[in-house]
Amino acid sequence: MPEIRVETDSAHYSVHLGSGLLQPQAGASSLVGLPAKASRVIVVTSPEVERFWGESLRRALGNGIPVNLLHVPAGEQHKRLSTVERLCEELAALGADRDTLLIALGGGVIGDITGFVAAIYMRGIRFLQVPTTLLAQVDSSVGGKTGVNLAAGKNLVGSFHQPVAVIADLDTLRTLPVRELRAGLQESVKSAIIRDAALFDFMEANLDAVLAGDSAALERVVESSIRVKAAVVAADEREGGLRMILNFGHTVGHAIEAATEYKHLLHGEAIGWGMLAAIHLGESRGVLPAADANRMRELIRRTTDLPNFAATTERLVALTGSDKKKRSGTLSFILPIGIGQVEIVNDVTEAELSAAVAAMLAEVQAISRASGVEEPAHAG
Amino acid sequence: MPEIRVETDSAHYSVHLGSGLLQPQAGASSLVGLPAKASRVIVVTSPEVERFWGESLRRALGNGIPVNLLHVPAGEQHKRLSTVERLCEELAALGADRDTLLIALGGGVIGDITGFVAAIYMRGIRFLQVPTTLLAQVDSSVGGKTGVNLAAGKNLVGSFHQPVAVIADLDTLRTLPVRELRAGLQESVKSAIIRDAALFDFMEANLDAVLAGDSAALERVVESSIRVKAAVVAADEREGGLRMILNFGHTVGHAIEAATEYKHLLHGEAIGWGMLAAIHLGESRGVLPAADANRMRELIRRTTDLPNFAATTERLVALTGSDKKKRSGTLSFILPIGIGQVEIVNDVTEAELSAAVAAMLAEVQAISRASGVEEPAHAG
Repeated sequence: MPEIRVETDSAHYSVHLGSGLLQPQAGASSLVGLPAKASRVIVVTSPEVERFWGESLRRALGNGIPVNLLHVPAGEQHKRLSTVERLCEELAALGADRDTLLIALGGGVIGDITGFVAAIYMRGIRFLQVPTTLLAQVDSSVGGKTGVNLAAGKNLVGSFHQPVAVIADLDTLRTLPVRELRAGLQESVKSAIIRDAALFDFMEANLDAVLAGDSAALERVVESSIRVKAAVVAADEREGGLRMILNFGHTVGHAIEAATEYKHLLHGEAIGWGMLAAIHLGESRGVLPAADANRMRELIRRTTDLPNFAATTERLVALTGSDKKKRSGTLSFILPIGIGQVEIVNDVTEAELSAAVAAMLAEVQAISRASGVEEPAHAG
Repeated sequence: MPEIRVETDSAHYSVHLGSGLLQPQAGASSLVGLPAKASRVIVVTSPEVERFWGESLRRALGNGIPVNLLHVPAGEQHKRLSTVERLCEELAALGADRDTLLIALGGGVIGDITGFVAAIYMRGIRFLQVPTTLLAQVDSSVGGKTGVNLAAGKNLVGSFHQPVAVIADLDTLRTLPVRELRAGLQESVKSAIIRDAALFDFMEANLDAVLAGDSAALERVVESSIRVKAAVVAADEREGGLRMILNFGHTVGHAIEAATEYKHLLHGEAIGWGMLAAIHLGESRGVLPAADANRMRELIRRTTDLPNFAATTERLVALTGSDKKKRSGTLSFILPIGIGQVEIVNDVTEAELSAAVAAMLAEVQAISRASGVEEPAHAG
């Protein structure tokens, strides 16, 4: 079973990856990764995930320790400070103290909320990530970014707070809708493009096997993706520099999500489109060879059907400007320069960005025509 | 002008203490302690404090940098996540980014809220403390504890987030009601008892001068108090051990505040009572010499008139049990063993605590009788 170490300035921990990790162990009551000294365990999950995995986790935790369970309804709209406050009040009512361990059982929303609750309850308690979606396993559960949304934008409040461990059980992905699995794989494509040419080659050669449910192939992809994330986060925990490369495809991707009100595309699908825009920008600048650009585009398109959506170039560019990754008036942009290589640039002009977004939107419209879908009358 | 360094694991900064610090400097536009690279400054304050010091601060900041001002109404009831969320939305609306500097201009509530906003907005931006009450200058502005209350209890959510600097202008204390000044001095008495016998001697000899507004005497007390706080925080930023000594008097003090719904006593007054209970406990155990105990009691009583209040021993002891400083079922208690010396013990029994609280309440009742105040019919 792969164990991937994450060594940051503030914490050292392992990501345990494999199958059967949430199965009750014969005799013993210890879940892998569970810290020895926890006075009490409180699991935060959604009703849906609880139905599939709640009982497994309870049994894996054994009887040696008091366990309570708190619910957060599924959906991005619950990722708000009001949910955080309610959970904190419930923790206090349960008598949670500084030795209580929180467990986030679910996807990225559950992990982000639970991690933030752990970051601020009594100024910080420990938490364990048990991600049950591919997106959460390869990306959001590792690296300690926690937080919630404001009305003004996604993830605008939060903390860096590392989990004590991450338990990524591949079995949980079997209960995941195929569209979600595919969308999550776009984060693995991202990891491959920014930092791991071997993963890129493997995905090119084995994507069909991964999508068909081949466990070994899937494990290879998940493991490599987590290793990319772990290495980047170890080098730059608080996103002072290198960690920004994890935002490859996200500047335009976030703008698409905002323009479509987070309803029409899954996060990974929006990132797919965002990567296509960034690839166009790299090619236009002449820093990304056409052959590499074509391989990237091909892999992104094979990974998911990218849904079409309605937005104007102007609106999307405006939304990137309000993106929180803007520093002091300069928009940092992650530019691909080859398979496995990106660079962080601060000199992307609005004209360049507009051209890249327009090229991407042309492709969106081509899909709409091909699929016979009428364009919505009013563009986001 | 004294400059006190605070050197913690996560940050190094100065507390600038003196008079005239908020006066506009001739020509220059630089406030002492202001970091060089701030794209924008947003001041959080209350309408009352703004009236006295808002314009001074604006002028001290000069014209070189955009300055906005946000309001938090005075009062502990506003120290909630809803206020934090509103401030964060206002920051986003103003376009605040990671290079924005927040300034907390006000007392402890303003500092705690603003520091927490700074801790979580975009996962952490810089903030400067400009404390305008004695309590905030000698205690809450230094050390990085930020946070807000839950319905379930005070300061139950928060972060450790150090300011970039603290500017403690003694002039601001001249606009402070005398009762608040006196209550704030109880935190200095606390500092003296836990760690600084020379400060204790000085306060014994010069309390009248301090209360009469003697600047040099007041500066000496404030400086020594801050040095105690800085040294303790440097040794134990996240309250894993030593920092707990700052809670001397606070276990019972917090229970009194909770029992009286934070309305009847100022924080420092409740801490005064709490220290009296802790002193009784130390004496009963035989670890605190009677002569030292008497000197402590005398200084506490001279520093403020301690208002009477209504509560039963049972209620107060129960409230200490729910105090957040409880760790794994053991209540840590800070026991005075001499002037300038305390120890952290974990073996205080409920019987001992009850006896100490009962002794303190007997004194409360003696005051009530002496002042001719009738005891409230129903005890909190």
